[in-house]
Amino acid sequence: MGFRFELIAGDAHSRARAGLIHTSHGLVPTPAFIPVGTQATVKALTPRDLREVGASIVLANTYHLYLRPSPEVIVRLGGLHHFMGWDGPLLTDSGGFQLFSLTGLREVDADGVTFRSHLDGSTHRLTPEKVIAVQEQLGADIIMCLDECPEPMDRAYNEEALARTHAWAARCRQAQTRGDQALFGIVQGGIFPDLRRASAEYIAGLDFPGYGIGGLSVGEPKEKMHEMLEVTVDCLPADRPRHLLGVGSPQDLFECVTRGVDMFDCVLPTRIARNGAVLTPTGRLNLRNAGYTDDPAPIVEGCACYTCQNFSRAYLRHLIKAGEIVGLHLTTLHNLHFTLDLMRRMREAILAGTFSKLRGEFLAGHEATEELGG
Amino acid sequence: MGFRFELIAGDAHSRARAGLIHTSHGLVPTPAFIPVGTQATVKALTPRDLREVGASIVLANTYHLYLRPSPEVIVRLGGLHHFMGWDGPLLTDSGGFQLFSLTGLREVDADGVTFRSHLDGSTHRLTPEKVIAVQEQLGADIIMCLDECPEPMDRAYNEEALARTHAWAARCRQAQTRGDQALFGIVQGGIFPDLRRASAEYIAGLDFPGYGIGGLSVGEPKEKMHEMLEVTVDCLPADRPRHLLGVGSPQDLFECVTRGVDMFDCVLPTRIARNGAVLTPTGRLNLRNAGYTDDPAPIVEGCACYTCQNFSRAYLRHLIKAGEIVGLHLTTLHNLHFTLDLMRRMREAILAGTFSKLRGEFLAGHEATEELGG
Repeated sequence: MGFRFELIAGDAHSRARAGLIHTSHGLVPTPAFIPVGTQATVKALTPRDLREVGASIVLANTYHLYLRPSPEVIVRLGGLHHFMGWDGPLLTDSGGFQLFSLTGLREVDADGVTFRSHLDGSTHRLTPEKVIAVQEQLGADIIMCLDECPEPMDRAYNEEALARTHAWAARCRQAQTRGDQALFGIVQGGIFPDLRRASAEYIAGLDFPGYGIGGLSVGEPKEKMHEMLEVTVDCLPADRPRHLLGVGSPQDLFECVTRGVDMFDCVLPTRIARNGAVLTPTGRLNLRNAGYTDDPAPIVEGCACYTCQNFSRAYLRHLIKAGEIVGLHLTTLHNLHFTLDLMRRMREAILAGTFSKLRGEFLAGHEATEELGG
Repeated sequence: MGFRFELIAGDAHSRARAGLIHTSHGLVPTPAFIPVGTQATVKALTPRDLREVGASIVLANTYHLYLRPSPEVIVRLGGLHHFMGWDGPLLTDSGGFQLFSLTGLREVDADGVTFRSHLDGSTHRLTPEKVIAVQEQLGADIIMCLDECPEPMDRAYNEEALARTHAWAARCRQAQTRGDQALFGIVQGGIFPDLRRASAEYIAGLDFPGYGIGGLSVGEPKEKMHEMLEVTVDCLPADRPRHLLGVGSPQDLFECVTRGVDMFDCVLPTRIARNGAVLTPTGRLNLRNAGYTDDPAPIVEGCACYTCQNFSRAYLRHLIKAGEIVGLHLTTLHNLHFTLDLMRRMREAILAGTFSKLRGEFLAGHEATEELGG
């Protein structure tokens, strides 16, 4: 009952593909969007809400849980699944992204990263071995190698960081002791095609059961992201799932599924929801706008989510303006339902041979919005 | 299909009684606890959550909704039931309590109250007629007369305020135009038995379908509250429901049901939940305490609520310490479930003739806590 990726169908006109990930906690149909549960909870949603909106897998952040409540507490409470009340598949990231984005003071050396907690300023050190040990304590079904996520345009820094990311990937592979967790290697390389290619080849050579693609969607132009994705995917084995870290707008999901990505995680749908921005087929609405003050329509007419079935834009706007928690809950519920439904429709279209049609129709009717986090 | 109070059974050893309120939006078994949905939502719970924890009726605050989003918006959205997605019985208070507790600058005269909004400082005026008009726009099943809630110990002020409260009650009765809403008169009188008696007699003389009891549990000693309650209830007709405003701790609910109260509303269970304080048969726990860091037990062993069925004290503590919205949701869900379940058990015991036994057992095992709002 371990990890297995089953490739089911490929699209005739693109690299898009439909698959099924088997884990000991259940199945993940791909392409899949993974809601982010940073601190062992997806913000504003319970596990039953996640089931209701169609989540098959949830991500939690190793960096955050390492600092609070600590892996030891989670072990004593029976592991992360039991701790957070989610009995489906779980993925933990390595903490690499947070180490390089959240912590003010950090020092990187060949062996690991020394950093100060963003919570209380206390000093900590994470090495590849430690990151694997922590993720083994947490017990997610899919875990990630420690990687370094550098500024994408800086060539010299990217070369240096990539050497560390590669050495750390090999050490993570070595450090793994549990046989029931799938360890993914992570490809980096900034916006440099040769570095991306070298990274994908090196990481693929370590024979991981799946591959993460990091360091994209961090400020580079869209065309660069697409180019890097194409270069990378070409060098990865077809029989392993590919996880693109940190991407989650409807347009990006289409563009990246088209380029052969199987899994995504991103705070975007949940974060913008908490700012009052909601997803619709034609683009984003910001419910804070005065225009919705007495709008009796749901966010999306015909949407099957609890929010759209029961509440008007006017009521949601009222809740958000009044600072009510239920407002955050209802917009988050809708945005995740919308995103997960989009993934289901993509998968069905790939299986039915109509992915290009779906993609064309969706993107033609959808107004692109800069992903500024709402 | 209008309002009707059906008195079903009385306890042989106390004034406790079981009844059934009929409204055009459904039934309210009494004694009843009414969750407070200040701004047209019970904080951190959706309407389906309220159904799940057993709420039969919800209260919303006229003062808050008058200021935001405004009665006009709610009318355009089809009335308060439709606006907030709650199709069960609804009660709105008169705004009196908020006028005298929230607003910094206010002027009371014989005709009404001029005040500044706590939101933006804008000036407004509410009269008895206006308060009825607003509540008719909102459209709750039970509405309340405008009353003045004075400092309970000040005799001279209480006499003066009581005269206004009585005159306003008569004007509210006159001002009512809708036949499908039950207007409750409110008894005041501070901690003065003669004023309470005079008030109950005067208000009862206006022949309302139900009676509110205000100005208690606002700082006076418990014995005074009980005495005032006894004096008041004695002067109210037995065939009408009695609603005690602002009381909601488990001990107080028992003490006041014993004294013949049928309905309660209070922010206590939901407010303390948001501070991490949860209700148990033996008293309150504060989940912020370090002692719960790795406590695998639910809040209450055997409790049927979603929170206790799925999550440990350790996990709830983690959510609260981490500032996660889901923590507020789960503690609120438990506290309301606990409170509403207590009311159900009281009602069953009254019907079974075992109320005194239930009361004795509960209070013996329950550690009284000062209601400081957690």
